[in-house]
Amino acid sequence: MLQVWALPGLPEVSAGDDLVAQILQGVDAARGAHGDDAALRDGDIVVVTSKIVSKAEGRMLRADDREDAITAETVRLVAARTGPSGHTTRIVQNRLGIVAAAAGVDASNTPNGTVLLLPEDPDASARALAAGLRSGTGARVGVLVTDTLGRAWREGQIDQAIGSAGVHVFEDLRGQTDAEGRELVVTMPCVADEIAAAADLVKGKAARLPVAVVRGRADLVGDLDLPGARTIVRALERDMFRRGADEAYADGYAEGRAAAVRDDTPSV
Amino acid sequence: MLQVWALPGLPEVSAGDDLVAQILQGVDAARGAHGDDAALRDGDIVVVTSKIVSKAEGRMLRADDREDAITAETVRLVAARTGPSGHTTRIVQNRLGIVAAAAGVDASNTPNGTVLLLPEDPDASARALAAGLRSGTGARVGVLVTDTLGRAWREGQIDQAIGSAGVHVFEDLRGQTDAEGRELVVTMPCVADEIAAAADLVKGKAARLPVAVVRGRADLVGDLDLPGARTIVRALERDMFRRGADEAYADGYAEGRAAAVRDDTPSV
Repeated sequence: MLQVWALPGLPEVSAGDDLVAQILQGVDAARGAHGDDAALRDGDIVVVTSKIVSKAEGRMLRADDREDAITAETVRLVAARTGPSGHTTRIVQNRLGIVAAAAGVDASNTPNGTVLLLPEDPDASARALAAGLRSGTGARVGVLVTDTLGRAWREGQIDQAIGSAGVHVFEDLRGQTDAEGRELVVTMPCVADEIAAAADLVKGKAARLPVAVVRGRADLVGDLDLPGARTIVRALERDMFRRGADEAYADGYAEGRAAAVRDDTPSV
Repeated sequence: MLQVWALPGLPEVSAGDDLVAQILQGVDAARGAHGDDAALRDGDIVVVTSKIVSKAEGRMLRADDREDAITAETVRLVAARTGPSGHTTRIVQNRLGIVAAAAGVDASNTPNGTVLLLPEDPDASARALAAGLRSGTGARVGVLVTDTLGRAWREGQIDQAIGSAGVHVFEDLRGQTDAEGRELVVTMPCVADEIAAAADLVKGKAARLPVAVVRGRADLVGDLDLPGARTIVRALERDMFRRGADEAYADGYAEGRAAAVRDDTPSV
């Protein structure tokens, strides 16, 4: 049985806040509401919306810098498209390797006139939170930091893991066999992303419920030095969708044209 | 509180089996193990791995036809890459609009020497299951049919919804406001995919647990004529990643070269 619940009563987060203390207050509030079962236990996974991590880490900027902020966060433009309204959506790869619309620069649920950057290093943020929660409770918990991400080919967004500590982000089935005794060679479920998605079902974006607890997959919780969510990012050379179709076509067209002209130019 | 559990004791499924009856037996087995709380209730969402739907619908083929089966299921080649082993991975869009490796043609957890196609119409499969479960239990449940899908940009796979009945596949927040009172304009969480992902955390691929129940989001359950999972598929003209980067580049290169040659050819 998997159980997932949101922590109630978390305050609005400001730069410099002690998130560990605030999460522990949320756990206490959950115990008040649901009883001692809501205390953190060994094997629980605490799933934290990156937005509050960014706020605590002081990653807020003035909103009039938004397009500049996106540019500053961009390592590589993957694709761009201008909609009927004239607004251009930029899909970019950011410092963290994550491919996201607007480089993850967020303007919802932030004070008017401000935007929020992603945490500097979400795996490090997750490690700090996990270490604090472990020492504060004595429970060996894991932590995921999540963001709401769009996808190729599918409409809408789902929450995914961008930071992880003390959690096996992949369930590696590659040694295991299926019911017919054959090895499961290809399958490597990204359980960190599945847990992030599950947690979003109780967090809600309009409500102020940025932290959830997932109980029931203690087998995925381990040491704090397990590989982080950075390992979910596909390396560029393995990525068949590292560039948008229109952008790749335009690159090819220009190169093809240039090559034809070169071929046609007599060497002197 | 969200609760997710797998149904125990489902038999190996064969062509022509009555899946509704088998799922109801699984619900009875869960009641035996966990008590009456495990009976289906209004608002529960039953999440069914497409594999058993395909088996019940007789979608099995001989394995020596696998590459032919992939070709037959393919509407459009999106990208292909040949690995060091010499095996070519084809990412294709299939009849259902779904972009998936090998067109969703599956060779794990099937009898030796066979492969399995996706259900003919997973939304229709989900509707038939939901109607059967509703009339068999009196509970107004939703049904999702899921497949394990790879993603652009991110390693590993997650379970996603390919069929849906009686479930709001998107949580449309576009009328709602954030904590600052501003309208949430962009966010449209694909809750069907999040539920599919959550269910995979209890189903497990090596174990024979192809059906899970998700309880706690009764607000997402509605009439059986709600739009299906087909609506999650992004329309081609909206899809910035409708073709692999290498393929789009090669198309552009050829066109650019041809255009240069045309421009250079004196008109007669």
